[in-house]
Amino acid sequence: MLTPATLQLIDLALEEDLGRGDVTSEVIFPVEARTSGRIVAREPLVVAGVEVARAVFERVDAQSRFDAVVADGLELKQGETVAQVVGATRSLLSAERTALNFLQRLSGVATLTRKFAEAVAGTRAVICDTRKTTPGWRALDKAAVRAGGGANHRADLASGVLIKDNHVAACGSVRAAVERARKHAPHGLRIEVEVDAPEQIDEALAAGAEVILLDNFTPAAVAQAVAQIAGRAVVEVSGGVDLSTVRAYAEAGPDRISVGALTHSARAVDLALDF
Amino acid sequence: MLTPATLQLIDLALEEDLGRGDVTSEVIFPVEARTSGRIVAREPLVVAGVEVARAVFERVDAQSRFDAVVADGLELKQGETVAQVVGATRSLLSAERTALNFLQRLSGVATLTRKFAEAVAGTRAVICDTRKTTPGWRALDKAAVRAGGGANHRADLASGVLIKDNHVAACGSVRAAVERARKHAPHGLRIEVEVDAPEQIDEALAAGAEVILLDNFTPAAVAQAVAQIAGRAVVEVSGGVDLSTVRAYAEAGPDRISVGALTHSARAVDLALDF
Amino acid sequence: MLTPATLQLIDLALEEDLGRGDVTSEVIFPVEARTSGRIVAREPLVVAGVEVARAVFERVDAQSRFDAVVADGLELKQGETVAQVVGATRSLLSAERTALNFLQRLSGVATLTRKFAEAVAGTRAVICDTRKTTPGWRALDKAAVRAGGGANHRADLASGVLIKDNHVAACGSVRAAVERARKHAPHGLRIEVEVDAPEQIDEALAAGAEVILLDNFTPAAVAQAVAQIAGRAVVEVSGGVDLSTVRAYAEAGPDRISVGALTHSARAVDLALDF
Amino acid sequence: MLTPATLQLIDLALEEDLGRGDVTSEVIFPVEARTSGRIVAREPLVVAGVEVARAVFERVDAQSRFDAVVADGLELKQGETVAQVVGATRSLLSAERTALNFLQRLSGVATLTRKFAEAVAGTRAVICDTRKTTPGWRALDKAAVRAGGGANHRADLASGVLIKDNHVAACGSVRAAVERARKHAPHGLRIEVEVDAPEQIDEALAAGAEVILLDNFTPAAVAQAVAQIAGRAVVEVSGGVDLSTVRAYAEAGPDRISVGALTHSARAVDLALDF
Amino acid sequence: MLTPATLQLIDLALEEDLGRGDVTSEVIFPVEARTSGRIVAREPLVVAGVEVARAVFERVDAQSRFDAVVADGLELKQGETVAQVVGATRSLLSAERTALNFLQRLSGVATLTRKFAEAVAGTRAVICDTRKTTPGWRALDKAAVRAGGGANHRADLASGVLIKDNHVAACGSVRAAVERARKHAPHGLRIEVEVDAPEQIDEALAAGAEVILLDNFTPAAVAQAVAQIAGRAVVEVSGGVDLSTVRAYAEAGPDRISVGALTHSARAVDLALDF
Amino acid sequence: MLTPATLQLIDLALEEDLGRGDVTSEVIFPVEARTSGRIVAREPLVVAGVEVARAVFERVDAQSRFDAVVADGLELKQGETVAQVVGATRSLLSAERTALNFLQRLSGVATLTRKFAEAVAGTRAVICDTRKTTPGWRALDKAAVRAGGGANHRADLASGVLIKDNHVAACGSVRAAVERARKHAPHGLRIEVEVDAPEQIDEALAAGAEVILLDNFTPAAVAQAVAQIAGRAVVEVSGGVDLSTVRAYAEAGPDRISVGALTHSARAVDLALDF
Repeated sequence: MLTPATLQLIDLALEEDLGRGDVTSEVIFPVEARTSGRIVAREPLVVAGVEVARAVFERVDAQSRFDAVVADGLELKQGETVAQVVGATRSLLSAERTALNFLQRLSGVATLTRKFAEAVAGTRAVICDTRKTTPGWRALDKAAVRAGGGANHRADLASGVLIKDNHVAACGSVRAAVERARKHAPHGLRIEVEVDAPEQIDEALAAGAEVILLDNFTPAAVAQAVAQIAGRAVVEVSGGVDLSTVRAYAEAGPDRISVGALTHSARAVDLALDF
Repeated sequence: MLTPATLQLIDLALEEDLGRGDVTSEVIFPVEARTSGRIVAREPLVVAGVEVARAVFERVDAQSRFDAVVADGLELKQGETVAQVVGATRSLLSAERTALNFLQRLSGVATLTRKFAEAVAGTRAVICDTRKTTPGWRALDKAAVRAGGGANHRADLASGVLIKDNHVAACGSVRAAVERARKHAPHGLRIEVEVDAPEQIDEALAAGAEVILLDNFTPAAVAQAVAQIAGRAVVEVSGGVDLSTVRAYAEAGPDRISVGALTHSARAVDLALDF
Repeated sequence: MLTPATLQLIDLALEEDLGRGDVTSEVIFPVEARTSGRIVAREPLVVAGVEVARAVFERVDAQSRFDAVVADGLELKQGETVAQVVGATRSLLSAERTALNFLQRLSGVATLTRKFAEAVAGTRAVICDTRKTTPGWRALDKAAVRAGGGANHRADLASGVLIKDNHVAACGSVRAAVERARKHAPHGLRIEVEVDAPEQIDEALAAGAEVILLDNFTPAAVAQAVAQIAGRAVVEVSGGVDLSTVRAYAEAGPDRISVGALTHSARAVDLALDF
Repeated sequence: MLTPATLQLIDLALEEDLGRGDVTSEVIFPVEARTSGRIVAREPLVVAGVEVARAVFERVDAQSRFDAVVADGLELKQGETVAQVVGATRSLLSAERTALNFLQRLSGVATLTRKFAEAVAGTRAVICDTRKTTPGWRALDKAAVRAGGGANHRADLASGVLIKDNHVAACGSVRAAVERARKHAPHGLRIEVEVDAPEQIDEALAAGAEVILLDNFTPAAVAQAVAQIAGRAVVEVSGGVDLSTVRAYAEAGPDRISVGALTHSARAVDLALDF
Repeated sequence: MLTPATLQLIDLALEEDLGRGDVTSEVIFPVEARTSGRIVAREPLVVAGVEVARAVFERVDAQSRFDAVVADGLELKQGETVAQVVGATRSLLSAERTALNFLQRLSGVATLTRKFAEAVAGTRAVICDTRKTTPGWRALDKAAVRAGGGANHRADLASGVLIKDNHVAACGSVRAAVERARKHAPHGLRIEVEVDAPEQIDEALAAGAEVILLDNFTPAAVAQAVAQIAGRAVVEVSGGVDLSTVRAYAEAGPDRISVGALTHSARAVDLALDF
Repeated sequence: MLTPATLQLIDLALEEDLGRGDVTSEVIFPVEARTSGRIVAREPLVVAGVEVARAVFERVDAQSRFDAVVADGLELKQGETVAQVVGATRSLLSAERTALNFLQRLSGVATLTRKFAEAVAGTRAVICDTRKTTPGWRALDKAAVRAGGGANHRADLASGVLIKDNHVAACGSVRAAVERARKHAPHGLRIEVEVDAPEQIDEALAAGAEVILLDNFTPAAVAQAVAQIAGRAVVEVSGGVDLSTVRAYAEAGPDRISVGALTHSARAVDLALDF
């Protein structure tokens, strides 16, 4: 299901590119010309965003036909096909760029996520995303992370309690902050506390934190913290994690490694529509 | 001016993160708590998106005060300040992530553009963008490119005629395509033709093309094409251009080098809100 | 903060009542006539929705002045004032009904919630809402519950895992369902399982459920279940709870009692704008 | 026909509940799982909102099939079926709550209206609604009143002239107010005047009022007023009317009895989706 | 007050013209350049749309200052000023065309209406509009008619009952149609019936029609019909009325003359922004 | 393709007329009544807006069937059919006015454009539109001009550079303005300069202007300017052109004659829906 907000984003995208017409295609192609094409991977990639691409073609022209050959989450080799499209030439060419822009970016997120997921294979760590998504794209970015083999962190500011240093400072202590959160937050949410130093861990646990976020720890410090926590809370690692360091972090034993770059710095992968 | 469509994008972004509330801040901070903070560069960067960040803080809480210290296009060193914010603690913390997500991505585009622009300094070539922007972000991405020192290619499918191979094939020849476009397209638009091989250049010029797009040429082939065109048309280069090759292309003498990566693959730069 | 979606709801409300003008006020009052009035409780109530009422008056006419005398959550006696408004007579009369419609309904929710909250005072039980809110009003309804002294259950389908009988059936067992949810759901969410009979409780606990929802239990059965669970999970009660039975349920020892009627069946309380 | 504004309300409702996904169903049900269910009355009721429920299921998933068994306005006994739904399990469960929230509230309005309508059966009085509808729900609430057997009062501030005490005060007299309204209001609208005391009736009639609204009269005073008006105007009664008093009011002879509670205080009726 | 729908129309208008920027002004004027100008009548006209023009300038740039010199409904001679604007040069030039497009069209409607109103001066006839307005502009067009000295017919399909030949045919007779409408339509609405021939008038009156619409009658036939109706209903004339014939129709004695051309065929009047 | 913005305009139009229902049709026609009708030209015209009319009928009721007999751009004689519609009587009557309002206005634009186009037949001049379109209708108005046989000038402020006297004044000279625009504007846009007097032409050409706009020249002065320009730039004429003068202007030899009246002052043509 594409949510109403995602459909609005697609409308914004179509309007910004097509809203005043496509002067080239309109003057070149007769209105009755029809054609077909294939969306093809130009490099190895993990695909994501297939249903968004479909929606783009169909909103430009409900008569266009979009047949997906693969679903989100599949790995494609260079040259393999994502989908076939058939319809009016004007419609397909007008939709092409917007559909590809969605697909290339979302497949870029999925592909990068897959690399991180493979880098930690065999450990207990699961790669997860953050709220550092592209504004307007939250639901799409998070679906692409799942397609890539990652897990989702909280969807928004209402679907997770995460106590950071500012919150602690306002309450006077970790204990006070956790207790206040526990009392007033929805009871289906766990209380997660960010710690910057090992000495905060015991206080957080004592206060009843259910998830401990180790921010900017070294892999060695993570290992020590994992031992210290000893299964009394979920352990999440964040900060300074990239493809060259993620394995070391994973082997230190945390449950989750969250990586903002999955969504804020993935490069677009190369996909094209060949007629 | 932020256009209505950009304000809609900001609303989508706020709604997706804040629409159900901020369970942590709401239970931790009293409604009357106030604070102030500074948005700071955590690495050297070229800033873009300052007015979007302002709009985010102001839409979350019209009582928040946002004082920009710099404007789009300025280079900041690590530690330098973009803006100061003052207001209700809940409001500032709730707006923080969305504002930074905009600013980090747009400054990332500007910073990457600046690198390309500096790489071609002293040549006649100007770096420009493409339509490979983030869907929903066209106007913002293009403004970030300008902030970075690049120029804009066409804004949408109505603000430039670009004849590609599919268009030529439909008309039978470059000449026929250019003539049809010239007859029917708005007279304020130039006719641009994409060529994949040197032998197409003369035909395009003879047909009256005002801009020749050399797609996937080597720098040497570009130099040859520039000589062949001899000022009779604007020369644009695209395809396979990255920071390691752009100087060679620029020295080959084209007027414009268009780089899709400016907007589809810029990594987010590091900015933070320090309280 | 009123979110973008709430502002859209306010716009829908104004458009549906005022969009074609107010034929009576426009023909009766000269454009320059000004007046002032007070929004007054016509019966004892707990107020909620004050900022929505303000937004209604201000969107109808940015020159109208709305001075809130009380904030959400306060108890008012009959005759006490919620706010004072001053402005153009046409503007105030045109906004009146929409502002009151919001305020009467939201204060109705808060007032009913307060009655439930007072009924369980002194027990460990906290009254909470459900997803049975008025479509389009989720954020407002949940804020009104908080104003009334209740707590919020999950904000939406993404901010809580709640496994019901259909989910269990699809997985084959409670254990399988909980494990699958634990593996894939965001790690900041607790796993809640609905049970219809005492014998399901041990299986749910063994499977790692963090919240047990006792659906349609008698107070006696709740007491037995609370003893059985013995602090190993949060205990929530739902189904068949009204003002006459809630105390008995609360004395049975659960942590949360969720009541759909708070939001789906509260009657509007009586408020008026007196000029 | 569901109007564009109603479709927007449905979108707001879906977005607020589903916009970030349904974490439980997505992790439990495989994407290809399909199921079917029946929407069933859990208590005797008059149904309203069937087409809204259909729209909810179809917007969540255009492949879902919704077969209405009954139409708005029918009385159902406990256990009778409103509609059958078939489709992807994830889609049906994700749409369930929003569809039921619409249906329970609107059927609640229709059911309450039917009770009032039956209470006045055999008299000349027709029950009608007011503008005290749920903001954003005007068209739906008014359709539910019709489904219940009531009539609609004015749809908005442009589809009826209703002169109240503030309007009279601004003009100096009932006569002046009615004359000004008659001169400037659209000629397809009748002039209605609210009177608080019997002595205002003759002045209103003399001024040309076509509808007299008796506000907060006793049944006995209504009977007297009806005799006094003697067919020279439509007689409407409002204020202090509930199920226990409405018959007495109806027997006093008015044409219309308007009841705000139909839409502002109807409790939701019990409907469920059984799989 | 500009309603939410009108603000949406203004946003559509700004987005369609400015959404991709103003390439000329942005490259020519420095961002800090400021200027002032006057909106001036280039021909005699009746002004309408002043508040819309203000909203256009303010939405483009909240720092622009718009001082209205006149209000809707005033007659201006050539060269007289409507408003003064001061602000950033880029902002004023970018808003100019959209503001003038609104103002020229709405003042065109007001000016044409004034001509019709003057043509019937001294008779009992009032000029009124129809539903033949510009789609999306209903509220603005109707306000412009009032500014020109006309009255409004029904605002929409809910604010007036108008029985035409198709409705009569469906019911079998005028009497049946009127009775059905009277029974079910909101009691604040009069029943209007369109008649094409004199012999239908008595039937309509007998059935209780409160307004008779004489469609495509000659002035002489109108005079006869007015005599026949003899004050028992409001008399409206429509069809084939232009500036050359309207006086003859007015002298025949009807209450209302409705003219579709007021809103569907008014030419734009000439207004300019002089710097 | 109807763009998202055009669909929004259609929604605004339907909501403003139908949003509160159609009180007449709803009380007269049973819900199951069906009918068919034809949209017919009541005078000779050039049709435009057929796809908009289709969208109106389909959005009111997806079950309505709309069969277009002609396409935009065809000339119809009085009595000829545009389209046939079949469906629920209520749906067709409710959509009728909105569909016709679109069709009558857009066909009016096309018909007027055709008259101008025929008036210049045999000359090199092409008639084109301006940005003086109906706010909210830009894309529709421009399509209607094409249907009438005209060409489009720039679509918006981003799809053409047009330097006017204010721009020249800000830069100090025509040369400076053109150079600044050339350097910064997208390279796919030509530079157009408006001149008010013959002596500015040489400077504009020397500065590299590619289009010269002769504003408010007499036909004789245009002929002289065309000779002076001698093919070195495209020549456009604007100002003071109407059907009585356009032939004289066209024979003076310009490439384009732009006429604001095409879109701001076309009268609606007469079309009706006959059942």
